[in-house]
This record gives sequence, C-alpha cells and structure tokens, in this order.
Amino acid sequence: MSSNSAAPWSRPSGRVASALRSVSLQRGFTRYAEGSVLVTFGQTQVICTASVEEKVPGFMKGKGRGWVTAEYGMLPRATHTRGDREAARGKQSGRTQEIQRLIGRSLRAVFDLEKLGERSIHVDCDVIQADGGTRCASITGAFVAVQDAVNGLLARGLITESPIRDAVAAVSVGMYEGQPVLDLDYPEDSSCDTDMNVVMTGAGNFVEVQGTAEGVPFSRADMNELLALAEQGIAELVRLQREALAQPLPEQTA
Amino acid sequence: MSSNSAAPWSRPSGRVASALRSVSLQRGFTRYAEGSVLVTFGQTQVICTASVEEKVPGFMKGKGRGWVTAEYGMLPRATHTRGDREAARGKQSGRTQEIQRLIGRSLRAVFDLEKLGERSIHVDCDVIQADGGTRCASITGAFVAVQDAVNGLLARGLITESPIRDAVAAVSVGMYEGQPVLDLDYPEDSSCDTDMNVVMTGAGNFVEVQGTAEGVPFSRADMNELLALAEQGIAELVRLQREALAQPLPEQTA
Amino acid sequence: MSSNSAAPWSRPSGRVASALRSVSLQRGFTRYAEGSVLVTFGQTQVICTASVEEKVPGFMKGKGRGWVTAEYGMLPRATHTRGDREAARGKQSGRTQEIQRLIGRSLRAVFDLEKLGERSIHVDCDVIQADGGTRCASITGAFVAVQDAVNGLLARGLITESPIRDAVAAVSVGMYEGQPVLDLDYPEDSSCDTDMNVVMTGAGNFVEVQGTAEGVPFSRADMNELLALAEQGIAELVRLQREALAQPLPEQTA
Amino acid sequence: MSSNSAAPWSRPSGRVASALRSVSLQRGFTRYAEGSVLVTFGQTQVICTASVEEKVPGFMKGKGRGWVTAEYGMLPRATHTRGDREAARGKQSGRTQEIQRLIGRSLRAVFDLEKLGERSIHVDCDVIQADGGTRCASITGAFVAVQDAVNGLLARGLITESPIRDAVAAVSVGMYEGQPVLDLDYPEDSSCDTDMNVVMTGAGNFVEVQGTAEGVPFSRADMNELLALAEQGIAELVRLQREALAQPLPEQTA
Amino acid sequence: MSSNSAAPWSRPSGRVASALRSVSLQRGFTRYAEGSVLVTFGQTQVICTASVEEKVPGFMKGKGRGWVTAEYGMLPRATHTRGDREAARGKQSGRTQEIQRLIGRSLRAVFDLEKLGERSIHVDCDVIQADGGTRCASITGAFVAVQDAVNGLLARGLITESPIRDAVAAVSVGMYEGQPVLDLDYPEDSSCDTDMNVVMTGAGNFVEVQGTAEGVPFSRADMNELLALAEQGIAELVRLQREALAQPLPEQTA
Amino acid sequence: MSSNSAAPWSRPSGRVASALRSVSLQRGFTRYAEGSVLVTFGQTQVICTASVEEKVPGFMKGKGRGWVTAEYGMLPRATHTRGDREAARGKQSGRTQEIQRLIGRSLRAVFDLEKLGERSIHVDCDVIQADGGTRCASITGAFVAVQDAVNGLLARGLITESPIRDAVAAVSVGMYEGQPVLDLDYPEDSSCDTDMNVVMTGAGNFVEVQGTAEGVPFSRADMNELLALAEQGIAELVRLQREALAQPLPEQTA
Repeated sequence: MSSNSAAPWSRPSGRVASALRSVSLQRGFTRYAEGSVLVTFGQTQVICTASVEEKVPGFMKGKGRGWVTAEYGMLPRATHTRGDREAARGKQSGRTQEIQRLIGRSLRAVFDLEKLGERSIHVDCDVIQADGGTRCASITGAFVAVQDAVNGLLARGLITESPIRDAVAAVSVGMYEGQPVLDLDYPEDSSCDTDMNVVMTGAGNFVEVQGTAEGVPFSRADMNELLALAEQGIAELVRLQREALAQPLPEQTA
Repeated sequence: MSSNSAAPWSRPSGRVASALRSVSLQRGFTRYAEGSVLVTFGQTQVICTASVEEKVPGFMKGKGRGWVTAEYGMLPRATHTRGDREAARGKQSGRTQEIQRLIGRSLRAVFDLEKLGERSIHVDCDVIQADGGTRCASITGAFVAVQDAVNGLLARGLITESPIRDAVAAVSVGMYEGQPVLDLDYPEDSSCDTDMNVVMTGAGNFVEVQGTAEGVPFSRADMNELLALAEQGIAELVRLQREALAQPLPEQTA
Repeated sequence: MSSNSAAPWSRPSGRVASALRSVSLQRGFTRYAEGSVLVTFGQTQVICTASVEEKVPGFMKGKGRGWVTAEYGMLPRATHTRGDREAARGKQSGRTQEIQRLIGRSLRAVFDLEKLGERSIHVDCDVIQADGGTRCASITGAFVAVQDAVNGLLARGLITESPIRDAVAAVSVGMYEGQPVLDLDYPEDSSCDTDMNVVMTGAGNFVEVQGTAEGVPFSRADMNELLALAEQGIAELVRLQREALAQPLPEQTA
Repeated sequence: MSSNSAAPWSRPSGRVASALRSVSLQRGFTRYAEGSVLVTFGQTQVICTASVEEKVPGFMKGKGRGWVTAEYGMLPRATHTRGDREAARGKQSGRTQEIQRLIGRSLRAVFDLEKLGERSIHVDCDVIQADGGTRCASITGAFVAVQDAVNGLLARGLITESPIRDAVAAVSVGMYEGQPVLDLDYPEDSSCDTDMNVVMTGAGNFVEVQGTAEGVPFSRADMNELLALAEQGIAELVRLQREALAQPLPEQTA
Repeated sequence: MSSNSAAPWSRPSGRVASALRSVSLQRGFTRYAEGSVLVTFGQTQVICTASVEEKVPGFMKGKGRGWVTAEYGMLPRATHTRGDREAARGKQSGRTQEIQRLIGRSLRAVFDLEKLGERSIHVDCDVIQADGGTRCASITGAFVAVQDAVNGLLARGLITESPIRDAVAAVSVGMYEGQPVLDLDYPEDSSCDTDMNVVMTGAGNFVEVQGTAEGVPFSRADMNELLALAEQGIAELVRLQREALAQPLPEQTA
Repeated sequence: MSSNSAAPWSRPSGRVASALRSVSLQRGFTRYAEGSVLVTFGQTQVICTASVEEKVPGFMKGKGRGWVTAEYGMLPRATHTRGDREAARGKQSGRTQEIQRLIGRSLRAVFDLEKLGERSIHVDCDVIQADGGTRCASITGAFVAVQDAVNGLLARGLITESPIRDAVAAVSVGMYEGQPVLDLDYPEDSSCDTDMNVVMTGAGNFVEVQGTAEGVPFSRADMNELLALAEQGIAELVRLQREALAQPLPEQTA
C-alpha cells in the first residue's frame, strides 16, 4: 500500500477506509411478494422481492429439486443522468446480465435446493437510486427477502426444514488513490484503480470474488489488504441482516 | 343505471361510489431527477420522474420547440402474481406502449412546447405496487414531477416563462355491479363491466376519454353519469396536486 | 362550440358536418378466408378477413369457450409517403398494437364466446389505401367478415346458434375548425383539435369511446355534440352492414 | 422427358403444358404511389407499388447514382390456411428475404442507375391472394409499376432520359408428373419434382435462373426443355406488359 | 462467347478457364462432432460439422422420417475487411439465410429421409477464411461430414441401410471478362458479370442452379457453356470426395 | 486444503496439480487479419484475430485516443453436444457477453490508448473446439494477435512507439476434489467446487480475478493457494507468448 503523503488522503465521503456507508434493510416494503426488502447502502436504494412459484424451469423438471434465480434492473433515472430503459431498447445490457447471473449464483450458494422442493424462488432486484455498489446491495437485500419467503413456506407447512444453509452478503472494496477502501460509493467507484466485489457467507467463506483493475494492475499485497477489508465489511453486513430478520415482519394494513 | 336491490350494493373497499382512495404525492422522492414524485392511489404506488435533456428527438430538431415524452414500466412483482420482466422478454407489451403514449399525450396537452425551448422532458412512470389505476396515478403524479422540473428551469434562468398552461390529472370511473363508481381498485377493475379513464385539465376540459365495455355495452345515460363522477374526482386530484406543489421541496441530505 | 365567422366554414371534402364518406362493403373479396370483405370509407380501403381455426390460444384451453382476436397492418405505400414495413423493422409500432387490440375488443363485445365453442376467429385488417379512419373502417368491415365466417360455421352445422349478439360498427368524430364533424378524412384528421373514435352496437350502446384532444382540450358540451354525431353515423353504418349481408355471397369461379 | 402412359397426363387446371394462366396488369390500382399495379396470374394477386424517394441509402451516398430496391410481403390470409403475420412475429422469414432480394436484383438488372440520378425507387410487392408463382407475378407487375414511376420522373423533368434499358419479367417452370410445364399454380407447385424461376429481359437474355429439385434431380435434357418453355412464357409476359403500358394511365377521381 | 482480343485474356489467378482451385477435404478436423471436415477451395476454408440428434423438429414428429438441416456462418474476420458478427447484430442476414437454406436443400436431395429414421443431422458450415465460393465449398465439404456421420450410425447399428442415395457437390461458374470460367475466387467473383452456383449429384443430375447476372444479362449460349463447365467441375469434386472418404478416418489422440 | 486420503487423488488427465496442458500459439493462422493466432490449451482451440480499423466508436471520437475491444463466439459443435447458434437465436447469451467484456478489459489493461492513436483494434475470439478454459485461452492468444497487429502498425510507420505496456495472459485454477489445481479441462471444470479465472500481466500483477464457488464456499487459505498456482501458470504462459513472438511471422503463399 502506497500513501499519498503530500496532501492528506481522504475519501470523498469523509468515511474512514474501513467504514461501510449507512445500511438499512426495510422488510415488507411492498405487499404482494413473499419477501420484499428495500435495502439502502447510503444513497443506493434497491427494492428486492422474492417470489415463490410452485414450478421449476423446464431444465429442472422432475428432479425433485428447487431453483433460485434472479433478475436485475435499474429505473432509467436511478442515475445522475437518465439511461435508456432496457425494455424499450429491447434487450438487457451485458452489464445487467452479468449482475443478475451473479446475484442468482450467490443465493444458490447458500441453498440446499433439494430441501426447497420442486418450486422456484424468483428474486427481482430493482435499483431506484444508484450511488455505487448496486450489485452488492442487491445480494445483501435479496438474502433477507429470500429468508422471508422461506419463512413463509415453513409457516404454511409447505416445507418442514429450511433450505437455507447460511447467510450471504456482498460488499465492494477497491484501491482509491493508492489505499484500500471498503464499500465504494459512485464518486470513488468512478475514479478508483481497482474495484473488487466480494460475496461471502455468514461463516466467512468466499462465494464470489470479482476484482478488476481498471487502471494500474494490483499486486498480491494489495489483494490481501482488499480481502481483509471485505471480510470485515461482510461480517458487519451479516450482523445487520440478522438484526433485521430478528424483528417481527411489519403488518400491512389495507 | 340499474340497481342491485336484493343484496345491498357495496364496493369491495367499502368506499362510497364517489370516493377517491387515499391519495398522496411525495415530492423529491429520489434525488437525481429534476422532478421526482412517489404517487399513491390507495395501494397503487408509482415513482414518477421528470428528466430534462438539452436536446430534442431527431424529428423535432431545429424547430425551436421542445418535447415531452413518457415511458411506463412495472416492476415484475408489483402485482399479485409475478409478471415477466419486459427487458428480459425483449419487448414492451402492447398495454405498456398504449399507456406510455397516453401519458405523453396527456402531458403535452397542457404544454406550450415553444416556451419550453429546444429541450426535452422525459417522464418515467414506474409502478412499484399495482392495485388498479396505475395509468391514472402515473399521469397525476407525472404532472407534479414535470412541474418541479419546469420550476428548476425557471429558477436556473433557462426559461423565463412557464410552458405549462394548466394542470392535468386522470382518474378511472366504471360501472361496478350496475352502478357508476369513481377510482376503481383492482378487485373492482377486474370484475367491472365498463372501465373509463378520463384525463382532464385544471380548467375542467377533457384531454382524453378512453372507455371500454368489457362486458355489457353501456348506454348514453351511463356515460353521462360516469363523466360527471370523473369531473368531480379530477377536481379533487387537481386540488391535491396544488397542495403538494405549495409545499417547499424537501431538502436532500447527503 | 365556436364558429369561424369571417370565412364561411367548410370541410376540405365539401361534405356537410354530419355526412359520412361514401361507404362500400364488398364481401367475398379474396377466396380462401372464411369471411373476406373490402371495406371503403371514401379513399380509405381495408381488406378484412376472418379466419376460423379449430383451436384456441393456450390461456383459453379447456374452458369450452372460443376466442376472437385481430391483427392490423398497413401496406408501406398505403399512405401519401412511404412508411417503414413493420415486418422489416422487426416490430409493430405502438399505434399498430393499440389499433389491433381495439378491433379485437370491439368484436368480442358482441360475441357470446361460449356459443362459438372452443375455436378461434382470427381477424386480419390490412389497409391498402389510407385516407383517415382506418381503424373505424376496419371494425366496420371486420364485423361483416366475421358474420360471414359465423354463417359458414352455421351452414356446416359446426354450431347451431349464432354467437353474435348484435352488430358493431365504428366511426370517428372530431372538432374541425371549431365545429363537430363526422367521419374525418386525412386532411381533417391531421389538422383537427379533437379526434374521437366511437364504437357502438346495433342497439345503440357504447363499446369503446376514445377521444383525444391533440390541440385545445374540449368541453363537456363539445363532447355531447360529438357523441350525438357518432350515434347518427353508426346507425347509418349498421344499416349498410345489414344491406351488404342481405345480399347473396358472390360465387367464386376458378 | 418421361411420360405417364397409363392414365392420360393432364394438369390440375386443364391447361396445356405451355399455357400461362390468365394474366392481368391493372395500373393505377392505388392512388398515392408513383407507380401502382395489381398483377394477377390466375388466382394469384399481388399489389406492386413503386415509391420514389429523393435520397439513396447510406452506402450509395455521393456517388451520383440511384438505387432500386424491393420488399415483399404476404397478407396472413392470402393462403389456404392462415400464416403468421411477419410483423407480429418480429422478423421476416428466410423465404421472404430471398424473394425480396430476387425482386430487387431483377429490377436493377435493367436499370442504368446513373441515369436515375441520386434517388431511390422502393418497390413493395404485397400478395393479397396466393396460388403459386407469387415471386414471378411480383417481378412482372413491379416492372410495370417502376416504368410508371420513371414516366412520372420524365414528365416532371426530373430526369431527361429513361434509366430503363429493357423490360424484365419472370415465370416459373417445372417438371409436373414427369413433364415440363409453364407457370405452375399452387396444386402443381406443391407436388412437382422440380421448380425453376426464370427472370429474363425483353431482349430474351437471362437475369436470374433459380432451379431446385425438390424430389428427383433433373437432367440436362430436362433443363433444356424447361428453359425453352420459360423463354416462350416470358416473351408473352413482356408483350402483356407492353400492352398494359400502352394504355393511358387511368385518371383518379377524388 | 466473346473474346477479349486486344490484351490476352487471363484469370487473376493464372488458372485456365476450366481449372478448379486446389481442393482439400480434411476429415476428423474437430473431435466432438459425428462428422467434421475442413474443406478448402484455394484460400477459402470452411469447417463443416454434422451433428446427429435423436429427435426431429416439431413439424416432422411422428412421421417415422428423419431431417437434415444446415446453418451457415462466417467468422467476422474471415474476409478482407472485418464484417459484423451476426450474433452481436442480433440477426442473420438475408444472404446467410439464403445460403443455409440452399445447403440444407442440397443435402436433403440425396437423402432418403425414411431410411434415416426419426433423427436429425444438423450441419454447421462456418467459414474461417473467405476467398469466394464459400457456399459451394460448404456443400461439398458438408456432404463428406454427413457421410461420416451416417457411417457412424451404421457402425453403431442404429440404422442398417444408408439413407444416402448419391454424392452431392457444388461449384460456381461465371462469365469473367466475357469468358466462361470455373470456380470463381473473390477477385473474379467481385468483377464478373454473371455468377452461377450449380449443385449436382454424383450421377450428374442437377439439384440446384442459381444464376444471377449482376451486370449484363447472359444469353442461352452462355448458359450452355457455363453448365458444361459446371458438370466437369462437379465430376472432379465428386471424385475428390470419394478419395477422401476412401481413407481411414484419422484417429484422435487425447 | 483437505485431502482425499482413502483413494489416491489424481486428476482425470493424469496431470500433476500444478501442470498446464500442452499449449501452442500458431501465428498467421488466417491471412487477412492484422494479427491471427490459433491458440490451443490441450483440446481447447480458439482462433484469435486482431483487426485494425482507422476509426473509433462514437463515444471515443475526437479524444485522440484509441480503443481495443473484443467479441467472443463458439461454433455450435465446438462442444460435446451441439449448442444453439447465437446468430440464429438472435442474441448473445449472458455468458458470451460476460466473456467478451472480460477479454476486452484484460487487453485494455496493458494498453496505453493514447499511443495507439485514434484507431481501434477489434479482437475476435472464436472457439472451434472447447474442452474448458476457453476464456483464458482466448485472452492468452488474443494478446499475441494484438501484438502482431501493433507490430504491423509500427512497421508501416503509423505509430512510432508501441502502445503495449506489458504482456497479459490468463489461466483458470480451481478446487478439484479438495485440492487446488491449475488449468482445468472440461471434466475437471464440470465437477469442481470452485473455479477461478485469473488474468495477470507479465510483471506479475493482477488484472482480473473472478472466482466462483459452484459447490462449497472456499476459505481464505484455499484462495491463497489458488492464487499462487495461478501466478506460476501465468508466468509460464507469458514465457510461451514471448517465445512465439520471437519467431518470424510465417510467410503466406498464395
């Protein structure tokens, strides 16, 4: 790790290098989905819903196992300047597909699909405000939505044992002006050299590591520091997920 | 108008025939758009943003006039059962296109596009919860978002006179079990015979009338009653728009 | 209603305000469809065919009821300047989808789908020359084509009772230079303030009302005048449908 | 050439082997296109329009030469059973593309594109009734429509010399039950072994030859007989084109 | 045939008019397909694979017959300047569709689909280097790949009799500077007046003839000379196919 | 790292854990591209071409900098069972887009785009045989193709200084039956718990790390071992790239 000695190094947000943004997980955000969470990482806001369907995709039929999959989207004006609406353009971008595949894989990594039975949980993560870290917020919020959906299946006696083996959460880390930092917001993300998204379980094991040097390639030593920051951040996020899930689900009034 | 004399007639929601649902218009709902409103008509919730772009579409170039257009979408799990994501299916449904064309026309009906100058206001209406009346809520909320965007242009001196000639709002009316009712929710909408969406100006003139008999065709007398209900409902919605716009725009804290 | 007192008001075509264009309904226009009608409203010409298929779409299967649906198209050079071919562009425009949905709903409004049995009538309306009013001509002609297709089913003993409850026809009305007029042609349509398409049954009830103020919003008094004109025009169209259907179907020689 | 000696050989239509179907070329069929022809080959009916545009496609710009191109379509119920509408399916079939490319090449073969100047002629061939031979009827009718469009350019002084070097027409030939026949209708086409579409100029030279053995491959001797029949048929079609063009263009009454 | 007397006529490649380019057929080129051939016609190189699937397309089901079909593609930089990747553009060009339909028809012309049983052979022809004649090389190579796939079915006892009735091969001929030539390479193809692709069987009968005059239409005498050249070229190609198939299939080492 | 003590652990290929497959880099594989390499990692074979275009995409215009981008494809029968052709399906899969974005980013990481000048290098990686590791082979081969293209620009004097700052190569590592292994082939890849693709520079720094636990999440200790293996493997691949580039480019004979 190099340091920027002339001017005192600081993050645009004023956070210390190892600080998450303010995180909230609001359960029962919309009323029809089996699980529905508004997750915020600072100004980033994502609606995560988990929908249970009593069927599986064609390639899974008759295997006695369930399926968990995810789709991701962003409202056109979630960002500083308006982006195209993917439905109007007629296709999802490569970036969108990459993210929704990542969310799906991350959730499946903590699922015992046999215990889910031959049904699907379809997760939708829709970004209503984007300030960096949307895929990490999506995974972190989606886990809570999926847990609520599974709790519903247990409560209704459709399954007798939870298919969820562990929590899963995600955070970004990166090299900002030569120093490793946790949970990049948009101003950091757009000027950092290296950006890494890390997905880990409650037990502290890795599910996904996706690091990209957009500027200067990074050394093995940098990598070790980044992974340590990620481990710390995810431990904090998993604690917040547990706290949120420990509350009673808010009642919905007509 | 026939009446259902055996059992006392009542609406599923218990509302009287001429009652709107509870309506709210929350300005400044997201932070990047020039206008951003969360509109609710009962359980129906729509995020309406107005984005200003300093250019016009190709077919409008060089005419010295502006353009106002709209796109509409629905989160896959805004509804009771999950619907397809249009971006994933690769095209917008006929229903989506019909609605977004209606929103755009309705807003343009109260705009003097020459006073807007050669710039565009792009409205996005994204339904996060759907309980009937999403197109009417979208138009009603979008007007407030567009007014905020225009106020911003005036405040920054980019235009000196407002291009907005009048307010515009929309409401549905229909024949529910033989009686005309105002502002149908989903249980009413899915079982009613006739559904009419009415868009009117603050001055009480018609911009759009779209009535469809899904069951029994309706008489001229029914139509007169429905239009009277709509006039009353829209007067109330325009009053709520004015109240919302009379408040100071909430400050956004980082 | 305002009037244009300086110059004497007149329609581009010289018609009086309440006059339809010359209308013709030529049955048996093409030889393979179960019903085939060339409808003309002045220079507007539409080929309407009704095709019977002994199956229903997936969402209707096993319900013992039939289905009536419609598609609409326009030859690229039906218009004054050549338009894109939708098949080549790879999608139907929003306008096309709106119109074909309207035609399908209008026909279904006079159908008892249970009496049709589990089969479909697929209507195609293809405009070969467009001079305004193509959707109204399509509905008016399609009804005759559908009646011929139903007559064929009855003649072949596939059904014993007609599923058609009433006639249906459509006409446009609008405010042209401040005065309500019936059956707008293209020069009127492109310069009028308000354009309303009205679909009514033979019994004089409303199936669809779609009014749009493209310029100045219209008052309730204007609306009443427009609806009265539409009622008169549709009564005339229904009479012409009956006359056409009273003729023997022309024989086709090989 | 083999012969079918047991039962006397005959064509389904009763025509002799070298007979064309009844052919008509109705000019001025629709009123807006610069050239508009309804061509019929027996029951096959195609509307051919030629639209002049004062620009060329991007790849032709600035070369001082014009362009001639074609699109082809078929109304869904032109055929015995209803086919999909290509605009609704969202793409043109391989067959459609093959045919429209053929029509375009055939017309360009008789054009001096430099004499046309930097403008385009866009031909549309839309089949309203299909009984075999639609691509040949299209080429034959399109030539007449294009000639009318060119005559209009000459009449208006936009060009001073005709860019058309020769007539072009097309006919199908094939082996039907072992014997070469001219101008196959649908019953012959669907059961023949070999089908060949031949496009020739007024001077009797070949522009395109597309022969396909759908059953038994054909010999060089068969080929010689087929080409001789085609030469005779095209000479007759070119004569009919000349006769049609020798008539005054019908006046269009409003 | 005219001759170019001033300067001595010669082909860009120096070949005599009736000479094929150097042709090779390398069997077992890739290891997973049931048949896999790299075919070269001079600098033109195409990978042809034949894949056996134990099912038929929907429209063929339950008829006890098999199906043979083909797809064609070109690597973006197979050509002198890079072309678009069709998968990225989202559709196959009209040219690609025309060619793959031709390859499929040509192969089916020598197949007895009943003897194949209810299974498919899916041929893929992918051009890795293009110097003219890619569709002819594809057909010629695909036949060898398909024969290897059929030999595998026979060896595994899945069929007891070969469904292949005869060999099939293809070659181009054309008028180059007024003289008929065999097997055009790219420099000849891009400047010739007439280009004809001829597909014939081992027995010397025609399967497909596709001739196009891109410049001057061609006479019947030209046509006769071109067909004679094609017959000679195809006899040579069929001999090379037989020689290649007479070799043992190369063993593949892990 | 756990070990599998009952049966002796071995890889399906018999390779030791730290062994690459046999790697070859054949330059000048096709003749038209500015750089063209056939890269093989064991049975995996990819054609990598680098095409130079004297323009940049729209979003890069006028910045005085160049662009490097990549597209990826797979022949339908590169795999054990035939996959869909993406051009025929009409879109690239999410996996394809993910891979081609990765290849492009990896190459740009070693490029000084200002030294390239306002031109593009378009890389195409087309898999003709797939046995695992296609994205890593693509990156490793593409670097050599791009170097050849740059050498050509230098030789022709279009640039005076190489824009390439360092070599770049890629390799996969993973946990196979509890042990970290280098360069997974298809049998290992389809049964391993963790798969990580690592892209590094010649100097030994990281460009991309993409690790996914498809089964059991992996520990930090596993990760350290995997990264060490990757470092060793990439050092070997960079050495092979240098050796290949040290040879003279093979001459191409017509």
